[in-house]
Amino acid sequence: MQMPEPDAQLMARKPELVTRLREVLPDDAVIFEEAETRAYECDALTAYRCPPLAAVLPSNTEEVAAVLRICHEMGVPVVPRGAGTSLAGGSLPTADSLILGVARMNEVLDVDYDNRSIRVQTGRTNLSVSGAVEEEEFFYAPDPSSQLACAIAGNIAMNSGGAHCLKYGVTTNNLLGVTMVTMQGDVIEIGGAHLDAAGYDLLGLICGSEGQLGVVTEATLRILRKPEGARPVLMGYDSNEVAGQVVSDIIKAGVLPVAIEFMDRPCIRATEAFAGAGYPDCEALLIVEVEGSDAEIDEQLGVILQIARKHNPVELRESGSAEESAKIWLGRKSAFGAMGQINDYMCLDGTIPVSQLPYVLRRIGEMSKEYGLDVGNVFHAGDGNMHPLILFDANKPGDLELCEAFGADILRLCVEVGGCLTGEHGVGIEKRDLMVDQFAPDDLEIQMAVKDVFDPAWLLNPAKVFPLEASAERRAA
Amino acid sequence: MQMPEPDAQLMARKPELVTRLREVLPDDAVIFEEAETRAYECDALTAYRCPPLAAVLPSNTEEVAAVLRICHEMGVPVVPRGAGTSLAGGSLPTADSLILGVARMNEVLDVDYDNRSIRVQTGRTNLSVSGAVEEEEFFYAPDPSSQLACAIAGNIAMNSGGAHCLKYGVTTNNLLGVTMVTMQGDVIEIGGAHLDAAGYDLLGLICGSEGQLGVVTEATLRILRKPEGARPVLMGYDSNEVAGQVVSDIIKAGVLPVAIEFMDRPCIRATEAFAGAGYPDCEALLIVEVEGSDAEIDEQLGVILQIARKHNPVELRESGSAEESAKIWLGRKSAFGAMGQINDYMCLDGTIPVSQLPYVLRRIGEMSKEYGLDVGNVFHAGDGNMHPLILFDANKPGDLELCEAFGADILRLCVEVGGCLTGEHGVGIEKRDLMVDQFAPDDLEIQMAVKDVFDPAWLLNPAKVFPLEASAERRAA
Repeated sequence: MQMPEPDAQLMARKPELVTRLREVLPDDAVIFEEAETRAYECDALTAYRCPPLAAVLPSNTEEVAAVLRICHEMGVPVVPRGAGTSLAGGSLPTADSLILGVARMNEVLDVDYDNRSIRVQTGRTNLSVSGAVEEEEFFYAPDPSSQLACAIAGNIAMNSGGAHCLKYGVTTNNLLGVTMVTMQGDVIEIGGAHLDAAGYDLLGLICGSEGQLGVVTEATLRILRKPEGARPVLMGYDSNEVAGQVVSDIIKAGVLPVAIEFMDRPCIRATEAFAGAGYPDCEALLIVEVEGSDAEIDEQLGVILQIARKHNPVELRESGSAEESAKIWLGRKSAFGAMGQINDYMCLDGTIPVSQLPYVLRRIGEMSKEYGLDVGNVFHAGDGNMHPLILFDANKPGDLELCEAFGADILRLCVEVGGCLTGEHGVGIEKRDLMVDQFAPDDLEIQMAVKDVFDPAWLLNPAKVFPLEASAERRAA
Repeated sequence: MQMPEPDAQLMARKPELVTRLREVLPDDAVIFEEAETRAYECDALTAYRCPPLAAVLPSNTEEVAAVLRICHEMGVPVVPRGAGTSLAGGSLPTADSLILGVARMNEVLDVDYDNRSIRVQTGRTNLSVSGAVEEEEFFYAPDPSSQLACAIAGNIAMNSGGAHCLKYGVTTNNLLGVTMVTMQGDVIEIGGAHLDAAGYDLLGLICGSEGQLGVVTEATLRILRKPEGARPVLMGYDSNEVAGQVVSDIIKAGVLPVAIEFMDRPCIRATEAFAGAGYPDCEALLIVEVEGSDAEIDEQLGVILQIARKHNPVELRESGSAEESAKIWLGRKSAFGAMGQINDYMCLDGTIPVSQLPYVLRRIGEMSKEYGLDVGNVFHAGDGNMHPLILFDANKPGDLELCEAFGADILRLCVEVGGCLTGEHGVGIEKRDLMVDQFAPDDLEIQMAVKDVFDPAWLLNPAKVFPLEASAERRAA
């Protein structure tokens, strides 16, 4: 993946930049020694690396504003960084950019149970938001796999989801308001602990804009009362198509599980070898979980099990205890790690209409043979959010490029069947060139014109979301 | 409410405009005789009237694009109109504008039960979307009071809600994709039947933008499986504060009724006289409805009734049959009509954090005495969406202006307590001058810059959403 040439003039002004940053931040919040900036050279899309010019770790909105004013004045690109868990290269720096990390901004500012909301600084990790309200039996719903590490800032930037977003929605459905600093250093308030917005819904626009429109420093989030209980069912089928049909039938029946997870045989095998979760050796496996009181759970599972049985499962195991539930989830939660044990892999992220699952899974299998690269599928099936893992050998010349080409073809397939390039990971650098497959030139032009409004000089999170040439042209304009 | 002076040059070019419009539309789709354009002189904010220059009734996206190209070229402002049910003057024309009505565009284009979605032309009425899927036991969730008449186009423009949006969300939560024609006549596709968006979430931005960014001609909407059943409970309390506290406690308890409706004594009395629904004569009345299977309903109502009893209700009536349910809802559904029988009224629409309900209701009562105008409150309490009805006498000089001033004060109060100028009616002309109370100049500037992107000449739905002088400046720029 190509990155733009660094601006030599900017590189030469590093000492001036550092001096000015140290005027507005504590000394230990400005990182500029090469050995230390290396800590910010990549995110979870580890195939690509590039140390930034420098990094800052501000503690509050005012410090963020001061930093941005300096960068705006000097023309220094800024790459906002949550916890650096992006799988799409969303927080990958360019060599002439400043990393603005929000890790120190992790305070809970207000908890308001009466209005079911919490206000936090956005460097706070996803799971610790739930942690802050669990004594009153509340939780924050979006649950990315990286929730132990990932920051709310990144969740907002990428509009993150998680296994349970089938019922609770993604970040945009659980975000009530933000404080955002523009590239010019202005602090603006958007939304709040109330329904709807007067005028245009800028909150919806900011959520998912990949840190390109402003730096979100504080957020008001919806919290929910924890359900009384939850119960998963494990279902095994002898083909991907049949399992896909079961998913489709459950959705059509109108019951709403909190999660419908899907794993195919390569993932099941790798997971079993790694975690020993007791999964059956079959072609496709579903984990369907429902929540509520015992009565509600029994009722919903009644409908779901009836559908499951109609399609002749090779395994149908309803959890009877907390231990059994944990075991059913153990394999799913270990799947990515298990795949990483046996191979390098690239994790894709596309969404499709649920009814297209059987077709898309079949086509991925065929393409896997054509490319000569194995694929494992483990994903949130209920909302059509696919995560094909393409296996490759990082040490074999050309394998990464082959893998990238295969990945691009899979994402184009998602778009073809009426889906979308991304589900929850965002575009980042990974999919920026595919945006032309999703959008007509006019559509893309409007998105870029929106970026012009917030960041006319195109300094925020450069070289991402849009095709590299388009970004470069825009920045030069 | 002041409207801008019409542009005399544009008025003089009416014959040319009509001729050109008739070249791209059937004769009966271009309305220009003064007697006929009067049909479009107002919407449901009936206090303000102004016939447009002309009106068109296109049948499809191509015709809309052809009309907009002509208007863009000639510099003619365009006011998109759904069914004209806006309570905020959202479809009120200016004298030099063309009304673009979507009433003829009411086809169902596709129903996809597997993906739980329906594609319609946006002139289709809200209720007839549900009508198109009811044979398979599905429905479209947002349910504005005007749902028999109002069009999906207007629902999208205003991000409409309804009594049941506490559980199902407002339009933006149920909208999957749109076809939109820009003022320049370009047709763009936004979103689709899949999760998330690649790049910026323009769909969220379009929804609620009051027809100022483009004309939405087709929409893909989420449909849901009908719940097995529903059961309302009627609760009477001897003060607004206590009833407000009950609402707050239910929300905090984490149960999620589909609706929590609130009526105060003036509304209860007017409604009883009009509809005879058998409501108790008390200070405040709540209707709380839950949905699901009988077991689910019993369980949720168990929690709710326990909270209700703790606050010493003067009445607590759980529906025991479909007839009793209908009777409980009858009064609520007649409330606006009942109030209209006894007085002219202005219906406001603001949202507040639910915990502020008791305080805001008390303040409205005090302000009512100060202004010497009576107020009835009937509203969606569960999501803090208030609809104070200010009673006035349209034939008494000065009463309308007094009522407007009182209304503005109530909306400022909503903003003060952390709420918002609008819940579901939008800003329109009604609240455009209050936008400066909600937003700082920088915040408003960004919204207007977003409008610049989509409609640089500010021709779409003029004189609305933003303060009149701001719009005029922007248009002249």
